Amino acid sequence: MSRPRYPDGPSHNWTLEEQYARCRLHEIGEKRLIQILTRHWKQDRGVLRALEEDCAVFRGLPDQGFWLLKIESVVEGVHFTKGTPFFLVGRKALARALSDLAAMGAIPRYAMVALAASPRLSLFALQRLYEGMERLAKAYRLFFVGGETVRSDALLITVSLLGHTPGYRPVLRCGARPGDSLFVTGELGGSFPTKHLVFEPRLREGQWLAQNRLARAMIDLSDGLASDLSQLARASGVSFELDFSKIPRRPGISLSQALQDGEDYELLFAVAPAKVSQLQKQWPFRTKLTCIGLCHPADPKASQTLDAFHGFDHFA
Amino acid sequence: MSRPRYPDGPSHNWTLEEQYARCRLHEIGEKRLIQILTRHWKQDRGVLRALEEDCAVFRGLPDQGFWLLKIESVVEGVHFTKGTPFFLVGRKALARALSDLAAMGAIPRYAMVALAASPRLSLFALQRLYEGMERLAKAYRLFFVGGETVRSDALLITVSLLGHTPGYRPVLRCGARPGDSLFVTGELGGSFPTKHLVFEPRLREGQWLAQNRLARAMIDLSDGLASDLSQLARASGVSFELDFSKIPRRPGISLSQALQDGEDYELLFAVAPAKVSQLQKQWPFRTKLTCIGLCHPADPKASQTLDAFHGFDHFA
Repeated sequence: MSRPRYPDGPSHNWTLEEQYARCRLHEIGEKRLIQILTRHWKQDRGVLRALEEDCAVFRGLPDQGFWLLKIESVVEGVHFTKGTPFFLVGRKALARALSDLAAMGAIPRYAMVALAASPRLSLFALQRLYEGMERLAKAYRLFFVGGETVRSDALLITVSLLGHTPGYRPVLRCGARPGDSLFVTGELGGSFPTKHLVFEPRLREGQWLAQNRLARAMIDLSDGLASDLSQLARASGVSFELDFSKIPRRPGISLSQALQDGEDYELLFAVAPAKVSQLQKQWPFRTKLTCIGLCHPADPKASQTLDAFHGFDHFA
Repeated sequence: MSRPRYPDGPSHNWTLEEQYARCRLHEIGEKRLIQILTRHWKQDRGVLRALEEDCAVFRGLPDQGFWLLKIESVVEGVHFTKGTPFFLVGRKALARALSDLAAMGAIPRYAMVALAASPRLSLFALQRLYEGMERLAKAYRLFFVGGETVRSDALLITVSLLGHTPGYRPVLRCGARPGDSLFVTGELGGSFPTKHLVFEPRLREGQWLAQNRLARAMIDLSDGLASDLSQLARASGVSFELDFSKIPRRPGISLSQALQDGEDYELLFAVAPAKVSQLQKQWPFRTKLTCIGLCHPADPKASQTLDAFHGFDHFA
């Protein structure tokens, strides 16, 4: 007997797959959702890395380095509120995408902006929003090469970025090895109510680490250290040990907040034992640099886990 | 006396610029809005074309051709309705962006998808949406290299595309010259309620025209022939003369509908007099090809205008 393509019969007729498909997004969560939607996606030979990284990485010609592509959205009610100044909304829309390029050590080159806005919005507000993006773009010599505007009730800005690593390799998430030290830039936690709007993407730090081959694996902290460190460790096939007393926290912030507040936009990276002292001696930035732990061989029994702490989930 | 930065006094105190800024987007309209927001954007030497074209075009190395970047959004209530099958929503989101690559004769290579969706949406619905994109991507050997999901009340899909013209130049909007013939593919008008959801982007036709250097200027018809032809003519600095009786219309469609319905996603292009017969003899596609008019020197008095016909405006 043929089974209906769009199931509407009683559930005992369905396969597990079909029962799962009936779930709503909030029951599945963001990470699992992305996994389900993308698990069958294939890549061609021009793609070095795609879904598992902060950005997609394309092979260039020999000696030409790599090109990177990224897409990021900010939406009213999630990444900012109705009361957030438009200048800061625009700034954050671009800064979030830049932070992902920073995490691979890439140089941002070109940006496109897709804007969904209400027809009742004033030109003045929109000009401030673009000013927020343009000010940041200018600081990093990034050029806007096009865009798209559609009408929508909620304000939503999507930025697509094209970046470059001329003459060097981007830093992936998967390069950490047992024995590597884990470092983090800046201070964590308490990014609300203001830091998440005005943070400086760690582009210069990330580029310096990539160009000097000091980071073997890197990720930017957007969902919170607990969640993002777990991702880096999983991608690299290592476990980790954190020295909780060393985790740099913003004033008045608890350990649990530093681990799971999210939206820090700092860099977390793994450094080979032979390069730790070079890193610490040569670090040329005023940005704080802290060693917070070590990588160990993957061993589910011995490994520390941070499962008790949760990062941000869009659909949970 | 210093003037307030955010004007709220009586309007006679304001500059023209400030009065203009108080306008709401629906009073300004989409084209003027984009002009205002982008008029001060500068480009670097790597950019051949940016804002004035269907896609941004980057110079490659000699003999390597050009790379193109595009961003496009579809939103519930504008490009589709609550009742549109999810498969067709996804298909349209990608097809619209592909049509812009077709208009430059480029080969689509990589795609990124930013999805804004309600947490109450089912996984089943979202899987159909992605299936609609994936089916189309497969037909054109396009690879998905990443994405982004955010929660939002309305469904909104933004696609960013990276395309390539290996060994040939993309066709710009600005290359039409007086004496050129104007051609259009397919039939126009009446794209609602169904054609706008199932149209085939004219990628093969656009690529063939670019590779054989048969089109000197090209644009895809998304806002309607009246609006898009005016754009091509303005970009090229020519005027035009249409033979209205020749404009290919879908069955039951009036001339005015064919001129301004929009969402045709056909190609409009200009062909040099010396190449017209070659084009007509060698056209290898089943897609209808029609000569609808001529380009003339720019002369505001003598020129035909289509100002009485309006294309679609997101904010009007």
